[in-house]
Amino acid sequence: MCVFNLNIGTHMYEFACKLFPYNRSITGNGVRKTLKDISEILPNLSIFEIESGTKVFDWEIPDEWNCQDAYIITPNGEKICNFKENNLHIMGYSTCVDKYVSLEELQGNLFSLKDMPKAIPYITSYYERNWGFSITHRQRKKLKKGNYRVFIDSTLKRGSLSYGEIIIRSNSKFKENKEVFLSTYVCHPSMANNEISGPVVTTYLLKWLNELSDRRFNYRAIFIPETIGSIAYLSRNYKKLKKRVIAGFNVTCVGDNNNYSFLPSKNGNTLSDRVAKHVLKYHVKDFTEYSFLDRGSDERQYCSPGIDLPMASIMRTKYGEYQQYHTSLDDLNFISDKGLNGAFEVLALSIICIENNLIYKPTNLCEPQLGRYNLRNNLSTGNKLKNFGRDVVDVLAYSDGKKDLLSIAIEIKRPLWKLIPTVDKLVKTKLLIRV
Amino acid sequence: MCVFNLNIGTHMYEFACKLFPYNRSITGNGVRKTLKDISEILPNLSIFEIESGTKVFDWEIPDEWNCQDAYIITPNGEKICNFKENNLHIMGYSTCVDKYVSLEELQGNLFSLKDMPKAIPYITSYYERNWGFSITHRQRKKLKKGNYRVFIDSTLKRGSLSYGEIIIRSNSKFKENKEVFLSTYVCHPSMANNEISGPVVTTYLLKWLNELSDRRFNYRAIFIPETIGSIAYLSRNYKKLKKRVIAGFNVTCVGDNNNYSFLPSKNGNTLSDRVAKHVLKYHVKDFTEYSFLDRGSDERQYCSPGIDLPMASIMRTKYGEYQQYHTSLDDLNFISDKGLNGAFEVLALSIICIENNLIYKPTNLCEPQLGRYNLRNNLSTGNKLKNFGRDVVDVLAYSDGKKDLLSIAIEIKRPLWKLIPTVDKLVKTKLLIRV
Amino acid sequence: MCVFNLNIGTHMYEFACKLFPYNRSITGNGVRKTLKDISEILPNLSIFEIESGTKVFDWEIPDEWNCQDAYIITPNGEKICNFKENNLHIMGYSTCVDKYVSLEELQGNLFSLKDMPKAIPYITSYYERNWGFSITHRQRKKLKKGNYRVFIDSTLKRGSLSYGEIIIRSNSKFKENKEVFLSTYVCHPSMANNEISGPVVTTYLLKWLNELSDRRFNYRAIFIPETIGSIAYLSRNYKKLKKRVIAGFNVTCVGDNNNYSFLPSKNGNTLSDRVAKHVLKYHVKDFTEYSFLDRGSDERQYCSPGIDLPMASIMRTKYGEYQQYHTSLDDLNFISDKGLNGAFEVLALSIICIENNLIYKPTNLCEPQLGRYNLRNNLSTGNKLKNFGRDVVDVLAYSDGKKDLLSIAIEIKRPLWKLIPTVDKLVKTKLLIRV
Repeated sequence: MCVFNLNIGTHMYEFACKLFPYNRSITGNGVRKTLKDISEILPNLSIFEIESGTKVFDWEIPDEWNCQDAYIITPNGEKICNFKENNLHIMGYSTCVDKYVSLEELQGNLFSLKDMPKAIPYITSYYERNWGFSITHRQRKKLKKGNYRVFIDSTLKRGSLSYGEIIIRSNSKFKENKEVFLSTYVCHPSMANNEISGPVVTTYLLKWLNELSDRRFNYRAIFIPETIGSIAYLSRNYKKLKKRVIAGFNVTCVGDNNNYSFLPSKNGNTLSDRVAKHVLKYHVKDFTEYSFLDRGSDERQYCSPGIDLPMASIMRTKYGEYQQYHTSLDDLNFISDKGLNGAFEVLALSIICIENNLIYKPTNLCEPQLGRYNLRNNLSTGNKLKNFGRDVVDVLAYSDGKKDLLSIAIEIKRPLWKLIPTVDKLVKTKLLIRV
Repeated sequence: MCVFNLNIGTHMYEFACKLFPYNRSITGNGVRKTLKDISEILPNLSIFEIESGTKVFDWEIPDEWNCQDAYIITPNGEKICNFKENNLHIMGYSTCVDKYVSLEELQGNLFSLKDMPKAIPYITSYYERNWGFSITHRQRKKLKKGNYRVFIDSTLKRGSLSYGEIIIRSNSKFKENKEVFLSTYVCHPSMANNEISGPVVTTYLLKWLNELSDRRFNYRAIFIPETIGSIAYLSRNYKKLKKRVIAGFNVTCVGDNNNYSFLPSKNGNTLSDRVAKHVLKYHVKDFTEYSFLDRGSDERQYCSPGIDLPMASIMRTKYGEYQQYHTSLDDLNFISDKGLNGAFEVLALSIICIENNLIYKPTNLCEPQLGRYNLRNNLSTGNKLKNFGRDVVDVLAYSDGKKDLLSIAIEIKRPLWKLIPTVDKLVKTKLLIRV
Repeated sequence: MCVFNLNIGTHMYEFACKLFPYNRSITGNGVRKTLKDISEILPNLSIFEIESGTKVFDWEIPDEWNCQDAYIITPNGEKICNFKENNLHIMGYSTCVDKYVSLEELQGNLFSLKDMPKAIPYITSYYERNWGFSITHRQRKKLKKGNYRVFIDSTLKRGSLSYGEIIIRSNSKFKENKEVFLSTYVCHPSMANNEISGPVVTTYLLKWLNELSDRRFNYRAIFIPETIGSIAYLSRNYKKLKKRVIAGFNVTCVGDNNNYSFLPSKNGNTLSDRVAKHVLKYHVKDFTEYSFLDRGSDERQYCSPGIDLPMASIMRTKYGEYQQYHTSLDDLNFISDKGLNGAFEVLALSIICIENNLIYKPTNLCEPQLGRYNLRNNLSTGNKLKNFGRDVVDVLAYSDGKKDLLSIAIEIKRPLWKLIPTVDKLVKTKLLIRV
């Protein structure tokens, strides 16, 4: 079981390029198209639809939104804010409109960023009917007085919210009736790090898990719209999840190559938290550790009181922490094959740690005579423990039938995944047994 | 419930000026006069007398001491160490004396401070009959050989120890059968920070509590002589106190404007400790945190084994930590309206925190749709959680039906008292309920 | 009970000089001679022999090795690597040999240290039959081509493993059915810090314990060969030890005067660990604190899963942490009377702490009137608690009938042994009683 030297970054980057242009929102055909593309890589993906108007906890599934076309015609006939050129030009959930407005009126429905004059900001109004256009500040400043035609050909009506779910069952003889849970969101239009990177990396993690020969745990993953999607999914599944999920990750902002970040679960000390910090510490060394107070994605739901799932986030550069965030500049240049691959590795290593986090105990009292098992050199020439495998003696000394391998790895300051060969050898020689 | 912008510092300073000159000791008429003045502000103050000779734990109530006059006549007829000019000139509990002594003899009964030549030190001898005078070192050095008349007109005989007690009952519909306990001491003669500030601030805190419309807890406060008073009071009341007191403060050294200080209970993690540190951290920011090893006042009794009350001290500059301490220089110039008011605010805020330290839980699973309750903006333009009230989502996320509001305030790094409007709003919209 | 100003360093150094030249190994007459010399100082030492071939956990007692003579004759007739000059020249457990070999052949059986050209390294091959010579690198480089006679007159055959054990019973009226355990090893040939210092200091500690008038605990100490000896001893005694041992020390590297070191038990928070850190902190101030991951001596066995004894190590410079380690340069110049005496003091103070680590509670509620017991000055002149014994009030305040004296000493930041007179006085005045 090893993920090193896998270079699937290229495949992931290509998949990100394919999904990038779709007009995703919390409902609509952009989501469906995205899920369909994912299911080509993951044939076992199930797609669900929840009807508009369905009650989900305190919320209601909104009407379905689709946009066919949208633009503004300037007084001198120029077509600007063209949805077909960049779907960020249209405010998410904009209602249908086709009329002439003065520049003054128009200004109330335009959104731009003074500080980032070349960026089209990402704006939505899911729960209050409205229309609007996003525009670069540079272009906005050039607009002259006069009559503007605003045209939005959208539909906002009863329909459904779509999401994908995949369940991969344990195929190990040491099968556990527990789950590892992955969640990612498919509701952002043309932005790259936040967010097409999450669905892309999750797809390839699941492809790897599908092919993995010895999975102790079941894996559950969902591709949902953020907030309303996780709430809807939880309203249908939370009792089951509470019983089964032992660890989980919200997969978001996993595409750029600038940083690694960790955001804990509310509990802060779940298996997910311990594993994520362990992997980041030994695999990438330098990472930013956020507090749950810095949260802003679906862990808000997964960690809410009464739900309390062990969901942590391993990210590259966190949402809200890079300038391009929620603008058209979070584009395919901001992410890279290296960035996606780095995130993939950290998440896959976390899963490997979870899979291998077993409890062992030695079969002997005191150290065994390691020389007899070819586990140490019989010639004693130097610094005591230094001339034979430190891992061997440490794994034997710390495996007390109570501590799990992750606790031991943390205590002996070694990455868990580098202890696996030692554990295998000790189990094979029957010096160590699984509890 | 709010204490901000109350400027009662002026009233407190005036009251301090009134009480300052009385000749207080652990017994006697100075204490009675002080209690009488306090009862003019607090009509519900009860005054108790315990007869000399009464056994209180390992101790016995001493004889009552009163001093009418005291002075020394120098060989050339000058009257010095005049009790009527400054009651610190007489050693507390000095016996009656009227005789001529040589300078050499006199020196054995004089007390002065070499390092502070202008200060009259505060000296007592409660439990060993003796007499003495305190004198500035400057004056002492000028004394010439010759015969000195020492005159002390005092009485030390069976009488009683006086103390005041006030109990303010809960007037809330959410009444709790628990108490908050305040203790301050009235045994120091003319000194200001240590100690007339304590009785003054405690009086005004109780006046504020008397007038408060919605008190969940009962309040118990005592005005006692230090050590023997708290021991006597405990010997009569400790079983009751152990059952009822959930938090308490020893109010001392609360008059100067130089510093804030905190001295924990022996336990170190009681409600009093947690509240005091929380209030100091957010309200004054910069304060000195002492250890229980630095103790020196009635927490010695309140936190002794078998008593174990949750008594912490919030002070301005701590006893023993300023040069003027226990001398005539700890006078009305050393304290100020600002100093008293600052202490009042910190103590009142601590009480507000205790009163509001309730446990809540949300009525929904997952985040509610805050836009429907006007608790967030429906237009999503930017940095996720940043565009709606952080407090709202954090209070909802951390209120799990187990953690009290103080724990939550500490965890989300916000002053508890600033969360009260949010909690009120959430309770009003029925998104949160009290457990 | 006091160890200060004992200057037994000189005696210990002399004893080290006597034991130093013996050819110790894990079995054989060098060990027996060492044990015999120790028993002259400790007449109550029992000596045990375990037959070769005996099973001890995963191990088997090896054949007994003795070496009468060994050397190499160079092509020009020079006798080098003479065992009789320095027993480190012969690899431990070398088999009998008498033959001529070429320089090339010889090189495969020579051991030297490039980086330390003047040192003879310490080499053994207990569990694989082999022969070899250790030589200084300087000399090795001078060897010329030609025929060398290698001569080893050793015996390696069924015999036994020898060890010493001493049990000193409690002679106090407050006798406890618990033990303090000391372990040291007698298997190293002519090296001083590692290891003749351990047996030497242990011998004198036991001599001191033999003579001690009021021992609450039983003391068990063993002089064993490292690893195989502790395993063999545990295989016979571990059930008893697990029940009885409340603290213990592995005594090794206690001879030099360069440093103090601490290596914790695996648990890290046993009585041994707490005492050792407390003593080192207050008695020597500056010491190196190692992790259990740095272990390398018999704590590997004592702290192994299922054994779990509270064994910590207090050392001077730790094995493996000085250049001379495991070479002929770890000689009698490397250790000193001061070095040995410092280690003795720290270990004896640790035992004093363990002996005095009792639980007390006060007989009164609140502070007693200390003046009545001459435990404070009746004249109050200054800084509150500062004018009477801090220890008296702190011991009374922290003795709650639950915390042991060590916990209190740590909490009040005072060395336990300096509290003993205070505790004695308080017990004598009946203000404190043992729980």
